[in-house]
Amino acid sequence: MANSIITLTTDYGTDDHLVGTLKGVILKINPEITIVDITHRVAPFDLLDGALTIGSAYSYFPPKTIHVVVVDPGVGTDRRPLLVSGQSQYFIAPDNGVLSLVYEREANVVVRHANAEHYYLQPLSKTFHGRDVFAPVAAWLSKGYQTASMGEEITDYKKFTLPRPKDWDGGPKGPGLKGVVLRVDTFGNLVTNFREQDLHDGAAVGQTINLQVGGHEVTHLVDTFAMGKTGVPIAYFGSSGYLEIAINKGHASRTLGVGRGAAVFVAKQ
Amino acid sequence: MANSIITLTTDYGTDDHLVGTLKGVILKINPEITIVDITHRVAPFDLLDGALTIGSAYSYFPPKTIHVVVVDPGVGTDRRPLLVSGQSQYFIAPDNGVLSLVYEREANVVVRHANAEHYYLQPLSKTFHGRDVFAPVAAWLSKGYQTASMGEEITDYKKFTLPRPKDWDGGPKGPGLKGVVLRVDTFGNLVTNFREQDLHDGAAVGQTINLQVGGHEVTHLVDTFAMGKTGVPIAYFGSSGYLEIAINKGHASRTLGVGRGAAVFVAKQ
Amino acid sequence: MANSIITLTTDYGTDDHLVGTLKGVILKINPEITIVDITHRVAPFDLLDGALTIGSAYSYFPPKTIHVVVVDPGVGTDRRPLLVSGQSQYFIAPDNGVLSLVYEREANVVVRHANAEHYYLQPLSKTFHGRDVFAPVAAWLSKGYQTASMGEEITDYKKFTLPRPKDWDGGPKGPGLKGVVLRVDTFGNLVTNFREQDLHDGAAVGQTINLQVGGHEVTHLVDTFAMGKTGVPIAYFGSSGYLEIAINKGHASRTLGVGRGAAVFVAKQ
Repeated sequence: MANSIITLTTDYGTDDHLVGTLKGVILKINPEITIVDITHRVAPFDLLDGALTIGSAYSYFPPKTIHVVVVDPGVGTDRRPLLVSGQSQYFIAPDNGVLSLVYEREANVVVRHANAEHYYLQPLSKTFHGRDVFAPVAAWLSKGYQTASMGEEITDYKKFTLPRPKDWDGGPKGPGLKGVVLRVDTFGNLVTNFREQDLHDGAAVGQTINLQVGGHEVTHLVDTFAMGKTGVPIAYFGSSGYLEIAINKGHASRTLGVGRGAAVFVAKQ
Repeated sequence: MANSIITLTTDYGTDDHLVGTLKGVILKINPEITIVDITHRVAPFDLLDGALTIGSAYSYFPPKTIHVVVVDPGVGTDRRPLLVSGQSQYFIAPDNGVLSLVYEREANVVVRHANAEHYYLQPLSKTFHGRDVFAPVAAWLSKGYQTASMGEEITDYKKFTLPRPKDWDGGPKGPGLKGVVLRVDTFGNLVTNFREQDLHDGAAVGQTINLQVGGHEVTHLVDTFAMGKTGVPIAYFGSSGYLEIAINKGHASRTLGVGRGAAVFVAKQ
Repeated sequence: MANSIITLTTDYGTDDHLVGTLKGVILKINPEITIVDITHRVAPFDLLDGALTIGSAYSYFPPKTIHVVVVDPGVGTDRRPLLVSGQSQYFIAPDNGVLSLVYEREANVVVRHANAEHYYLQPLSKTFHGRDVFAPVAAWLSKGYQTASMGEEITDYKKFTLPRPKDWDGGPKGPGLKGVVLRVDTFGNLVTNFREQDLHDGAAVGQTINLQVGGHEVTHLVDTFAMGKTGVPIAYFGSSGYLEIAINKGHASRTLGVGRGAAVFVAKQ
């Protein structure tokens, strides 16, 4: 039985022909497919950003969806192309860790080295495997070709673990946890790596938190950014489960002068 | 009978997983649907910009199209989600006025408070109702579920009126009308709030106008920006019916140093 | 027999309702069509950039695909709308040269002046022929209407030739070839107008090249940018066949201070 949706997550941007070309390749093999862009604005070559993006989106798609993730600084070298079978969906990506959150969340993944070259576009370029490898493998898979025909199972694929908050005695407000800003969203909100369970043991009480980022204090823990007073930074748990820092109707990143990678301290109360 | 198109208009940007997630939610409920992006670059939280965008686009779509409009500064508060039935199309949006131009142009709208929570995604987040409320309600509607099952009709929904040009005696060239730059388009053209009927009574004669914006004079009223001389600002009525100011092959906003919200004066002749 | 794919390549950007409106017009005429964005970020009014974009992408699409290309600085003047039949695909664009690479690569194109106005949207605007002319003509064609019904064949259509490298005696390293940076891609790579055959006669030997751009030397010719050392600019033939200059994991355009239109010298060795 054929699969009907292919999603695309890349760092190609949308300024030129790259994404359109990928779609042409897919549609030439399977004109019936529905193609969905997750985003093409993953930070260039940024595996963590790519991993967070696909990790936040994939579970909302139907069973049998095929997710193509191309953040590929090693294109043209000997890094392997992968075809990963999760519980009900498929993932096609370079073997560089960009699927780390998928490996973490899906039980019993089967990872294959997708080296059956008769599924590739020929001639095979050295710089555009999105077009020549990942898109055609996804398209043939969507036509009902078997994963087993696409390459041998492997177990030594690359994965990294997301940075997690650590105990930290030297925080500006005494002992607590030290985390990091994972990314800044469209609205300027700072997405940190704190999850609700990290703050259970006294680091957040009711609607109070004792957070420091970039020299600024955040003390209000609310349900949604719309509850913040104008101009006052607040914290809340966002839709992906991470603690976020925002300024209602403002742009926290610009106002606080804080960007990706900045340290975030939460003191115990 | 099922509806076959859902459009999306949001301020989510396209840098992360938000838009892709919305599409996954919709396709999981209705895999047969065609999803069309109108834009995801509405200015963040900007209800007027959102209202102008959907107001300019919706009438070009087929009957039974479902338009999802998510510009939602009050997400997670008690602002209501709406399902609006127009003459032949549907609109799903928060109750904050972002559909004001739809209310103005569609005769006999029926507005419902879409509070039938069994159509929502669970658990319901406080910050991402695009994913948890608006997308699934649209998807179930596209499957043929009845609007009446989605919530009670209401009449006290929010709307605002677009700013219109006013009589103004203190213009730099004597009495006339004062309007405003509603937005700057991709080409740098300034879209004002003057419509053709505003200029009937002597404020524009043949190919002459007496317009002032940001200290600059515009005197040429032409059919299309391509008729302007290089470097000389000209005025014309754009495709949405508003008077626009452009510089042929140039970028009027940068060259004139004028942006959104700037005052525009048109003197009577 | 109907065609099933329409692609869109424009300079409209994705900040407002323009692209969504085009799609509405197409879907109102042919709700069964698949619409694919190639890009909407062609540099505004830039015919060369538009020609390169469609020229790089179209051949990857299936036979009978209809490509709509709207880069149209002359909209509303007497420039003609064209319908071009290539070997197996169709192209709809203004007659301003934006299809020049298509004419160069497709044998025996048939070019028609698409002036059968009953296929246009009415009333016809002077500024938005994407919506009123190009989109509806494409949609009717996709429904199986004959090209011959859409306008007379013409032969005096506009085309330009892409700039090619020239012999140059005054290069900084002695005699050789002078070319140009055609564009900067998403990763900051400089795409030049050198093709492999231009470098056959001694200008590149094995993995060595003698290239100068913006006062910088590039001497490494590699298979893919991933083979460059961090911080050292390298050259390679990219996926479109052009010589590109990149810095592995860096942004060549910013680091070298070089942008579109910059001269590129390759000395003979």
